[in-house]
Amino acid sequence: MSEELTGNVLVAQSGGPTAVINASLAGVVTEALNHGCIEEIYGGLNGIQGILNEELIDLAEESQQAIRGLRYTPSSALGSCRYKMKSQEDYERVLQVFQAHNIRYFFYIGGNDSQDTANKISKLAKERGYGLRVIGIPKTVDNDLPITDHCPGYGSVIKYIATTVKEIALDNESMGRHDFVSIVEVMGRNAGWITAGASLAKRRNEVDDPPHLILMPEVRFDPTAFIARVQEVLRKSPYCMVVVGEGLTDQDGNFVAAGSSQDSFGHSALGGVGEYLRDLCEQHLGGVKARSCKLGIAQRAAAHCSSQTDNDEAFLAGTAAVKAAVDGHTDKMITLIRTDSDFYGSETGMANLEDVANNEKPFPTQWINEDGVSINFQFYKYASPLIQGEVQVPYENGTPKYMNFTGNRVSKELPPYQS
Amino acid sequence: MSEELTGNVLVAQSGGPTAVINASLAGVVTEALNHGCIEEIYGGLNGIQGILNEELIDLAEESQQAIRGLRYTPSSALGSCRYKMKSQEDYERVLQVFQAHNIRYFFYIGGNDSQDTANKISKLAKERGYGLRVIGIPKTVDNDLPITDHCPGYGSVIKYIATTVKEIALDNESMGRHDFVSIVEVMGRNAGWITAGASLAKRRNEVDDPPHLILMPEVRFDPTAFIARVQEVLRKSPYCMVVVGEGLTDQDGNFVAAGSSQDSFGHSALGGVGEYLRDLCEQHLGGVKARSCKLGIAQRAAAHCSSQTDNDEAFLAGTAAVKAAVDGHTDKMITLIRTDSDFYGSETGMANLEDVANNEKPFPTQWINEDGVSINFQFYKYASPLIQGEVQVPYENGTPKYMNFTGNRVSKELPPYQS
Repeated sequence: MSEELTGNVLVAQSGGPTAVINASLAGVVTEALNHGCIEEIYGGLNGIQGILNEELIDLAEESQQAIRGLRYTPSSALGSCRYKMKSQEDYERVLQVFQAHNIRYFFYIGGNDSQDTANKISKLAKERGYGLRVIGIPKTVDNDLPITDHCPGYGSVIKYIATTVKEIALDNESMGRHDFVSIVEVMGRNAGWITAGASLAKRRNEVDDPPHLILMPEVRFDPTAFIARVQEVLRKSPYCMVVVGEGLTDQDGNFVAAGSSQDSFGHSALGGVGEYLRDLCEQHLGGVKARSCKLGIAQRAAAHCSSQTDNDEAFLAGTAAVKAAVDGHTDKMITLIRTDSDFYGSETGMANLEDVANNEKPFPTQWINEDGVSINFQFYKYASPLIQGEVQVPYENGTPKYMNFTGNRVSKELPPYQS
Repeated sequence: MSEELTGNVLVAQSGGPTAVINASLAGVVTEALNHGCIEEIYGGLNGIQGILNEELIDLAEESQQAIRGLRYTPSSALGSCRYKMKSQEDYERVLQVFQAHNIRYFFYIGGNDSQDTANKISKLAKERGYGLRVIGIPKTVDNDLPITDHCPGYGSVIKYIATTVKEIALDNESMGRHDFVSIVEVMGRNAGWITAGASLAKRRNEVDDPPHLILMPEVRFDPTAFIARVQEVLRKSPYCMVVVGEGLTDQDGNFVAAGSSQDSFGHSALGGVGEYLRDLCEQHLGGVKARSCKLGIAQRAAAHCSSQTDNDEAFLAGTAAVKAAVDGHTDKMITLIRTDSDFYGSETGMANLEDVANNEKPFPTQWINEDGVSINFQFYKYASPLIQGEVQVPYENGTPKYMNFTGNRVSKELPPYQS
């Protein structure tokens, strides 16, 4: 559909890792090898930050084993960053690096912020008349990218959480107490996508099946109503299992438990809402014992309990990005499209980077039951297919055997950069 | 070796569950079916608490599938308790229940406190001339039972922790920061057995490989020295990974983070030391970002990441208990004996309940390096064999398929009990 563009590929990863972000990278590398117009396949270390510093490795030199190992290795094998491009000079520098290495295909695997960065790089290249095709590959445990039906990374995080919640619930149930509150704090800053995923642990779609109370960031928290709910559950069940998203807000819309530090995008560091709820229960419910756990980074790194469906789609998104770029597309992000709502299937599509960048997909409030503490069947129908299948991670000596790149550096062509 | 004793089996579970406590139960049921002298196989619900209330179920009526499912189902399928026998009347009642149901074989799967209870029941039966054989089956994630080389439940908890720590470390490493402290809080009240298990996540037995700092309850915590250590790690590594046992103590031997509530054995509720260390790092190390996660109950319930070796040994301990009792032994706890220190193998032995009850096996301080924050090769040699092999848990609809008993109740023969 468009003229052939010959040159090199650069692929990089950005933002918080997922269990399957490397599967997308494997998809890019595998597909890139199929196209004659692609000469070298470079990886940018630590996202845009490494690209600014011309820190590239030669991915074509990596072994077949390494690329296969990428399929199930969590974290960002190329390294990640949360660097916010600071100035016009930053963008100019990126373009200089691209020119110095004849980068004609840029694939950026990341979330909202990363798609914004990709969009701006693409625009600058166009402005300067530099032939470059830029395709974003969606990645986020938060599942909050717009247009795409869901994001690679999401299925695995909720599979892990549903599994863990199911296991904790069994443990709680067996303890034979009648006054126990078990709290699990999960990720999710602004939207309850991850929190809602815990509902997949239910064996029946009934309120009295654990997790009993799901506290979504979308539903403003009322301590009095919460305590009453817990009491109500404890009247019928020997324990009350609560799953809470870290981004829970109070009646004024402030985070219930906000830390003091902020990241470079201005987001507040969250965490601690689980301990807050624990204290609340023990203080306001006489004789009740409460315990919380906080899965933290473990939840997005748990490749040992990741979804095969998610993994396959992450790989597919990587291959689709390369195919789209070779076909002449640019300024797009690969999306996942659900082909049938009854029997799950998916294929890839494309969205304009501009429409994706810095937009967030909210959790549909109509999927939250009127009680505000449970999730309805529409969510189950949406999310259940995404957690199907188990990735078989190889083990060595009792723990998973994950891959490392040899990481042969590409020679630097430019003087060092001071941002 | 002794006269045949014909009658019924009662098996029960007690204390905190593990990923493999039900494998021991499966071992008891499976083996009990092989012996003609055993008539009925009953399960006591919620440990000694349910036995006091005559809450028994008929395990022989359960399906083959249910017994097979026990092999990989976490938590205590019969229900557990932390009930402390309060009075002589409690013991008398237990004996009445045993007599009412012709219980001649009692198997109690539990930790130190449970072995003590089993011992006292056995003594009372002897005193009253009631023919009863009592065999304890070791169970504890804490690995602190004496005499036995290790405890069923321990291998699985440290396999899960080592896996999780390895995955978190990969995530931390990829973030490309040079000022990140990652903290993982794990269980372990008095001994660092579980904490030390995190060292199995190391790819090399070197201090600069994560986890960088392992804070054991055995080593009194010095905040100044800790901060200096973190700084030292951050000079060489982009992040510092800390694993801390919940039972960390200060220079005076008090818990660094002690909750207010106590359980019925007088143990303090712990938790929160991870958040404490996070705050300490952020307050005393300018610009450093710290995050903690607390695995909580997830770690002892994670059958989806349990050790096949541990599972096999838990089952073996169950079968060995029945064989020992049928052979005429009583007042014993099954132990695991390491048959060879170079090529791992294990077999079962027996210890006197009296020698086990309420004794704790300390973590060998000579296995902690002089730096106080790392574990040496002797521990690796001890613990590595215990995490080998992966239990294949069946999945259904994306999450593990765990079993439930049908739970047909045995008719009560006695009036209700008021303890």
